Parts: sequence; C-alpha cells; structure tokens
Amino acid sequence: MRMVDLIAKKRDGHILSAAEIQFIINEYTNGTIPDYQMSAFAMAVFFRDMNDQERADLTMAMVHSGDTIDLSAIAGIKVDKHSTGGVGDTTTLVLGPLVASLGVPVAKMSGRGLGHTGGTIDKLEAVPGFHVEIENEEFTRLVNANKIAIIGQSGNLTPADKQLYALRDVTATVNSIPLIASSIMSKKIAAGADAIVLDVKTGAGAFMKTAEEARALAEAMVRIGNTVGRKTMAVISDMSQPLGFAIGNALEVQEAIDTLRGQGPKDLEELCLTLGSQMVYLAGKAPSIEEARANLQEAIQNGSALETLKVFLAAQGGDASVVDDPSKLPQAKYVFDLEAQQDGHVVEIVADEIGTAAMLLGAGRATKESVIDLAVGLMLRKKVGDSVKKGEPLVTVYANSEHVEEVKRKLYESIRISKEAVVSPVLVYDIVGE
Amino acid sequence: MRMVDLIAKKRDGHILSAAEIQFIINEYTNGTIPDYQMSAFAMAVFFRDMNDQERADLTMAMVHSGDTIDLSAIAGIKVDKHSTGGVGDTTTLVLGPLVASLGVPVAKMSGRGLGHTGGTIDKLEAVPGFHVEIENEEFTRLVNANKIAIIGQSGNLTPADKQLYALRDVTATVNSIPLIASSIMSKKIAAGADAIVLDVKTGAGAFMKTAEEARALAEAMVRIGNTVGRKTMAVISDMSQPLGFAIGNALEVQEAIDTLRGQGPKDLEELCLTLGSQMVYLAGKAPSIEEARANLQEAIQNGSALETLKVFLAAQGGDASVVDDPSKLPQAKYVFDLEAQQDGHVVEIVADEIGTAAMLLGAGRATKESVIDLAVGLMLRKKVGDSVKKGEPLVTVYANSEHVEEVKRKLYESIRISKEAVVSPVLVYDIVGE
Repeated sequence: MRMVDLIAKKRDGHILSAAEIQFIINEYTNGTIPDYQMSAFAMAVFFRDMNDQERADLTMAMVHSGDTIDLSAIAGIKVDKHSTGGVGDTTTLVLGPLVASLGVPVAKMSGRGLGHTGGTIDKLEAVPGFHVEIENEEFTRLVNANKIAIIGQSGNLTPADKQLYALRDVTATVNSIPLIASSIMSKKIAAGADAIVLDVKTGAGAFMKTAEEARALAEAMVRIGNTVGRKTMAVISDMSQPLGFAIGNALEVQEAIDTLRGQGPKDLEELCLTLGSQMVYLAGKAPSIEEARANLQEAIQNGSALETLKVFLAAQGGDASVVDDPSKLPQAKYVFDLEAQQDGHVVEIVADEIGTAAMLLGAGRATKESVIDLAVGLMLRKKVGDSVKKGEPLVTVYANSEHVEEVKRKLYESIRISKEAVVSPVLVYDIVGE
Repeated sequence: MRMVDLIAKKRDGHILSAAEIQFIINEYTNGTIPDYQMSAFAMAVFFRDMNDQERADLTMAMVHSGDTIDLSAIAGIKVDKHSTGGVGDTTTLVLGPLVASLGVPVAKMSGRGLGHTGGTIDKLEAVPGFHVEIENEEFTRLVNANKIAIIGQSGNLTPADKQLYALRDVTATVNSIPLIASSIMSKKIAAGADAIVLDVKTGAGAFMKTAEEARALAEAMVRIGNTVGRKTMAVISDMSQPLGFAIGNALEVQEAIDTLRGQGPKDLEELCLTLGSQMVYLAGKAPSIEEARANLQEAIQNGSALETLKVFLAAQGGDASVVDDPSKLPQAKYVFDLEAQQDGHVVEIVADEIGTAAMLLGAGRATKESVIDLAVGLMLRKKVGDSVKKGEPLVTVYANSEHVEEVKRKLYESIRISKEAVVSPVLVYDIVGE
C-alpha cells in the first residue's frame, strides 16, 4: 500500500477500506507517512468527504493509535458528555454532580487546555484544597462509592488525533465534518465512554456558526457512535451569546453551585436538564427522557444534587464549605459595573468577544505558559432580549488590575443596544439521536 | 500574510493576487513555508483550479525563484520547443538542425533525466567526440555563427518548480492543469525563450491520456504564454504508439539523420514539419506557417538541413562523418527480429510498454544512478494499421545481452495483432494558438 495511491483514491472520490484507513493512521502516527502527504489527504477529504463507514473506521483507527482507558472496574454504563466549546459554559460543573446524584457513574478525565477560561480542572481548583492528582485505583474507588470523581489526563490517548489536529490547524483543513466528528468521537471512546451525549454549539461564539452546520456535525457524530456501538445523542444549542451569566473560573463554580441549588440562570439550568436527562436515560437510570428530566428536577429540589457536589469536592481534598460560603472562593480585588450608555434593548452579546475580554482579564490561557487568575472574570447582568435603561449595569467586571481599558472597550463593542426589541434566542435548536 | 489563510482562500474558490502567489512561491523556495502547507495548497488548486491571471502569476513567480538565462547576446528571436514527453520522440534531434538551416537561432539547453531513453544530450553523445561542456561565451558564439548549439543545464533554474514538482509527485497533485502548465512554461521562460512551440502528446504513451485533456493543457500553456508576452503555439499529437520507428539513443540519432535526408519515417517527418513551421514562423523567418513549411521541405531536399547537422556536430567536437557512415555510431552486439506469430493487422502498439522494454535493454535510466547503453534499443518494423504475415518481423531488437526474455515477452504483449483491420491513428489532432 502506498500513501500517494490512497491520496489519489480519495481525491478521485472513491471509498477507502477499513484496512486502508488503518494503514494511513498507523503509518502517520509512527512517522512513516510524512505531514506533507497527510495534509494533502486531509484536503482531499475536505473536498470529497467520507461516508459513514469511513468516518467510523477513521474514528476507531485513531482510538487504537494510542492508549485507551479501561473503566470496566466501575459499575454501570459510563456516559460521557462533550461540548464543542463556547463561552461561559458551566454545564460540566453542574452536570457531574447532578447526574451522579441519580446514580449515573461520572468517571471524568479532564484537561486544562487553552481558551477564554480554564478547563474543568482549573475551575474546580478554585475550591481551596481540591486536587485531581489521585491514583487510578483511588479514582475507581471514588466513582464506585460517590458516583463521581475527576482525574487529570494521563496516558497517551489518540496520538494520531493530536498529530492530525495540529497539522489541520496550519493547513486550512480544520473545517471538515468527517475530520471534526472523528476527532471528537475518538477522544471520547479512547477515554472509555460506553455512551456519549454531545452538546453541539452554534452561533457567533461557537465553531459551527450556523444551525445547519451544527446539525450536520451532530448527525455525523451520532452516526459514528451508533456504527461503533456507543449509544450517542446530541443537542444543538445556542452560543450566539454566552451561556448563563458567569465567565471566569471561581465565578463559574459559584454559578454551578447556584444552579445545583435551583437558583442559577434559567438558560444554564434548562440546558443542563436537557443534556442531563439524556445522560441519565442512556445510563439506563430512567425508562424515558421525560422521566429522567423529572428525576433531575427532583434532585435539585430535594438537595441531593448539591449534597453530591459536597461529597465529591471533599473526597478530592476540597473545602466543601465553599458551597454554603462563597466568600471562601478566590476573590477579585476590583469589582465594578459597566453601565449602559443609552436606553434600549440588548440585541446582541457577541460571545467570543466577551470570552476574549475575560481572557484579557486573566481568566484563560492565551498560550500554554499563561497562568490563570481564578478570581477574575465577568458576570453578565443583561442577556439578549432584555430591556435596559441608561446607567443600569450591563456586566460586572471582576479584575485584579486597574488597567482594564481594553476590556471595557471590548465589552462595550460586544454588547449591542438598540431601540428595537428582539426576542431572546432559542436555547435548544434540536436533538439528534434515539 | 499567512500561508494558512491563503490555503483557505484557494480552498474556498477565491482568486489569489499576484502578490499572494509571489509570497507563496518565494517563502516556499526559501523554506519558510513547509511542504505540508504547500501540499495542502496544491490539493486545493487541484480542486479549485486557477484562472488565467493566477496561472501566469504562478509561472512568473517560479521563473523568478532562481536564475534566468540571458540570451540577448544571440541575434534573432529565440524559439524554444517543448514536448510533454513520449516514446521514441526523435523530433528534437531533427528540429534543431532543420530550423537552424533557415536561420532560426537554436540555443538549446538540455538535460539528461530519467526515462525510456536518454535525454537529448545522451542521444547526441552517441556521436563520437560530441560534448556539451562548453563555456557560455563559446555557446553564444556558436549559435550566432551556426544558428545552433547545445549546452548542458547550468545555474539554478526554477528551484520552486523542482521543489514543488517533487512534492506533487508524492502527494497525488501532479495531475492539475494549472500546475502542469505553469511548471512547463516557467522552465521555458527561465531558459530564455522569446517564443515557445509546444508538442502536447496524447494517448497511451503520454501523460495526457485523452485528446480533451491534451487540448486543455495546450490551451492553458498558450494562454500563459500570451499573458506573459511570449508568443506560444501548441500541437496536439498522437502518442498512442511510438513516434517513428527507433527507440534508443544511437538508433534515434540514425533516424534523425535519415529524416533530415528526407528518408525518415513519415509520421516523424510530418510532425517535424508541423512543429518546425511554427518555430520558423514565430521566429519571424517566414511570413506564414505555409511558407515556413515549404521552406523546411526545401531545406531537406537541397541538403542544407543535413549540412547544418554536420556543422553543429563538428563544432562541438563530434565526428560529423557519422552522418554518411552510420557504422561509426555505437553498435549493439546482438541484433535480431521478433517475428509475428500470426497473420493479421497491427491494431495496437502500447507506447509506454514499448518504452519500458527499451529501458530494460539499457536504453534509458530507471534511477539517477543508471548507466545508459547508447547502442541498444528497438526498431519498429510495423506500425498501427499495417497488415502483417506470420513470420514477418514486427520489431528488431538491438541488445548487448542474450538474456532478453522479459523484453521479448513485453514486446509480444504490447503489440496486438487482430484479424480486423484498423486505420492508422491521426498524427496531429489539433493546433492551438495564433
């Protein structure tokens, strides 16, 4: 088999066999196939696409390119959730304790990464004492006992995907449905998921700018999951404006606590109930999505979701009293409101620009070397569809520097106020799967 | 400017500016743009094509990526001829002396290269004493005096093209009209051509398998030439079977001598008259193609073409007496006929297979390290459309080894005889330009 022939085959619109796709991924991972052949192949895939079987074969070839996590020592159906990424997305912090409180095993492996705010581990480290440096055996024991634990990424998962993603990033081949879908699904499967719930974001703050693109990606991933024997569902949700109010690490922990108490932002709660009910259903802990949802609402109301959070935090060294005393979370030195400069209606909050503003405050990493400031961030005081009067707060800024002129300017530019009212955007566009 | 953005721009079907194309070629040549970006770009061009202006800009960017030859010290309009390559193509050996005899300056720079037989320089070295190691001043003097001289390739011409071609070869991006056309045209222009005549081959022995593909390439090159101020014409000619009878180095020199004497194969003579009349016309040495053709026929009949060959060979150290005494050319040890095994009509002579048979005898280079045997090769005794009787010679083999079973087998497989007669193929499909 020669890579140049396989590039030509895909270039000419033919279907690749499982053996051919495995050859490409194996030889690329071990360095026999050079980057310059792989990038030409990726561009051919961009133009010619892959059918369902090719996408599934590519996914599994990437899964087997490195280590895979064996979660068989954990009882129950392990359901993993993945979000395609957005701004102020506190869902993971809420969903873990929420579904765990209904007996769904949450064996979470998480990273830090780059972005507007930190990763899930960074956020949880806002809780004094909390850490993820635990042994695998302890991790398994904790999930079996408490139904939830989180551990840092270990092992060399999907090296083919890491290598290919870095290459796609510099060769204009990121934006290809078969390549995006197989990348995401391979990571979830290598991490040991039996079933997968996907939150595919759409809008200005998301990678998929339109609902149509998001639907195509969601359908592609659900079909891959079904083809390779992992039950998969997907929600297409709005990211035209940030989700919830908080963008920042400690601020999002606080918002997650509020939401688990039933006092969080309505959009965040709604999305968590939608995603959570799918997780509970796929884990076999409820006979229907509707019943799963009702059980989740009950877990919020009767305090068991919040109790699960406390147990989870304490089990990994965290000070669980932050749940009742938020002043124990990192606090910013300067807190001030940005006030509306005119009367009107909020018609747009450009999510990725708001995220960049939070990153400028120090909430996220621009490069791997950046140090995150857990205390800083933003709290939206208005969302799209709200009316506003001149002088009312639009957003509260939590900063550790007085020099935030650029952040202010960016925020004013990103929150558009108009005389004409608009309705608030739809939160959940569609559900794909089952 | 970032390469990843330019790849995306072409990927999305947009037109690149001259500055953008120059950036790509310059930065690729100096190593700033890596192969993996260039191959993704080439694949995007494969799918999205380039318009006439982009093709011209790409050609000139490659011309300026390295040295260019200044032929201004040579009087007259320098017309270069290029063939897209075939089997047993003796046209260059014939055309040089032929058009030079009418005063067209032939300042030929040539290489050795890989292939079924040697390059033009290899072939000419079959003439005892002939060499191309001459100084630039001597080269100029010879062309001005005799209207023809040949020199080995020197300088670093079109390094961008060399680098890109090697990359395209291993990334399935060879077969793209804008990339093929700009590659060929950049080499001709860098070598100093004022006007260009192209022989675009089509058929089994050619890169362009159909006349439609050949026409598209021919038109692309003629348009590039016209856009960058080099008058260009192209002939689309048949390469379904080898041209002429000879495939081999000394054998082709002998065939060229025969043709310049008016006693060569009719197809070779016809193609030389077609291409030659365009060269004479573009050089301004005849007021019309028709008149140019008549003058060429006259030069063959009155012996001036053959005389020019003798002067040319002698001027570069060659023994011009080979022209009248072919026994002075390298002779093969074993000469034998391959006889027809049945009565019938020759309906196919697969050109590239015949070429491979010649290479197996030692007539060409399979790798850069191969040593050419100038004496060996093949002489076709029948061509497509000829009738044949069992026992009649199909081809004469000139070998320096007795172990030629594989060559014999390949020849029998490549020369197909049928009960049904066919007409001989059209030689010149079309002429593009002017």
